[in-house]
Amino acid sequence: MEILKTKREIRAVVKKAKESKRRIGFVPTMGYLHKGHLALIQNSMEDGCFTVVSIFVNPLQFGPSEDFQRYPRDIERDISILEKAKVDAVFLPSDDEMYPAGHLTVVSVPNLSGKFEGAIRPGHFTGVCTIVAKLFNIVQPHRAYFGWKDAQQLVVIRRMVKDLDFDISVIGVQTVREPDGLAASSRNVYLSEDQRRRALVLSRALQEIRQMVEYNKIIDAEVLISRGREIIKSEQVELQYLEAVELENFEIIKNIRKNTGIIGAIKVDKVRLIDNIIWD
Amino acid sequence: MEILKTKREIRAVVKKAKESKRRIGFVPTMGYLHKGHLALIQNSMEDGCFTVVSIFVNPLQFGPSEDFQRYPRDIERDISILEKAKVDAVFLPSDDEMYPAGHLTVVSVPNLSGKFEGAIRPGHFTGVCTIVAKLFNIVQPHRAYFGWKDAQQLVVIRRMVKDLDFDISVIGVQTVREPDGLAASSRNVYLSEDQRRRALVLSRALQEIRQMVEYNKIIDAEVLISRGREIIKSEQVELQYLEAVELENFEIIKNIRKNTGIIGAIKVDKVRLIDNIIWD
Repeated sequence: MEILKTKREIRAVVKKAKESKRRIGFVPTMGYLHKGHLALIQNSMEDGCFTVVSIFVNPLQFGPSEDFQRYPRDIERDISILEKAKVDAVFLPSDDEMYPAGHLTVVSVPNLSGKFEGAIRPGHFTGVCTIVAKLFNIVQPHRAYFGWKDAQQLVVIRRMVKDLDFDISVIGVQTVREPDGLAASSRNVYLSEDQRRRALVLSRALQEIRQMVEYNKIIDAEVLISRGREIIKSEQVELQYLEAVELENFEIIKNIRKNTGIIGAIKVDKVRLIDNIIWD
Repeated sequence: MEILKTKREIRAVVKKAKESKRRIGFVPTMGYLHKGHLALIQNSMEDGCFTVVSIFVNPLQFGPSEDFQRYPRDIERDISILEKAKVDAVFLPSDDEMYPAGHLTVVSVPNLSGKFEGAIRPGHFTGVCTIVAKLFNIVQPHRAYFGWKDAQQLVVIRRMVKDLDFDISVIGVQTVREPDGLAASSRNVYLSEDQRRRALVLSRALQEIRQMVEYNKIIDAEVLISRGREIIKSEQVELQYLEAVELENFEIIKNIRKNTGIIGAIKVDKVRLIDNIIWD
């Protein structure tokens, strides 16, 4: 497994792989890897791709009062995980390599970026789109893998890829869960035992909604959402949003159907967690 | 010469050229081609590139009260010019091909975009960056050619290319002038005979400033700019700006040196014209 710290080096490695007719699969991450990341990597490997993983905690996607400084990092552990997973190349740039002095340009998806996660985290998706556009131009992959756990991020990136004509397939991979139902996330490490117990109310509410839709054939979003809110209220957490949306544009909808989802965000004391169920 | 109307077709043509080890030179235009465009094309041909010219009047870079509708167009004449110039491929997309329904994403260069042309034409450079990013992703050239006549556009695009890590060299080509000194521009067609006579005051003022710098060794921007403004005042035109700037960031400077320029914009009745001299 090659570990590359500069754009120049990763470009050379990708160029060589392309010359050997390999297709390039790309998994951009912020490190502190978990089962969710491994599912993305596995998808790329199973697609037969020369698999490139990037690890970069992108300052541009954190707000000034957010957790950029304390975001969990453990590069040595990440590298050992990636070696075991038989990843082909890891791109591990410094902040200066990605944002040298004088950087100004941003990529944004107005409207889509301003809803839900974007409303709570202003500028977040602009930061995400900008770094992803950069990484796409550096790695020039055929395919890029993102988790459905960050559903709005996936939809924003698909919109960007389509709108800016990137010649890249964006593959959405199903959310991986811990045995207790919690969606895998690097931020789960912030939770104390008690907070984690309370955090489970979000996945439990979503699971019950899924049952109501798939077994009881209830598709009325108002009914589903009120039941979900009721469940979340039973626990000591702050509900930020729980809504049924059209997946393409994150508009609130009245009935569950194909290409819709229910997205939720809670705060457990100071820890924000998001989760969703989608019907795609 | 191949004429391609869809992204799919131009991509296939470029792919084939790359397979034959050709380097791709790209000249994005809004058509109504003039000598300035031909200089860009000639540079690409002399660099030995497989030369792709795009013609697309980009609605996104025009303000609501600007000249998008009446912008001069003559595709047949353009094609005959490009054939004579022995261009390899012309990309001629429709509005729907470039901006299908649902398009949201924009690329912008805050700060740089808000000065001079960007202050007078809000949103202009965001429109320019967005279409150029799209065209770069569609054509995937090795080199792209832009004229120094639109100096701020060239600087904004260079910034975008650097910041978003496009693997493309942006080549700036010297302004081409009519025999009377007027900088070549598609918009010159808007000028009546009398307006054209008045319009020449801008290139005349810039020419006198160049003499003062290069022969009289006057580098004090205040002296140069006041002389320029004096000349422009002698004619019945509206001066929008005339300033000495650092080329990298378009900050106003006190002394002319390497990598600076003097940029100017006037209105002759309703016709806006820009011009500049640069020391790069």
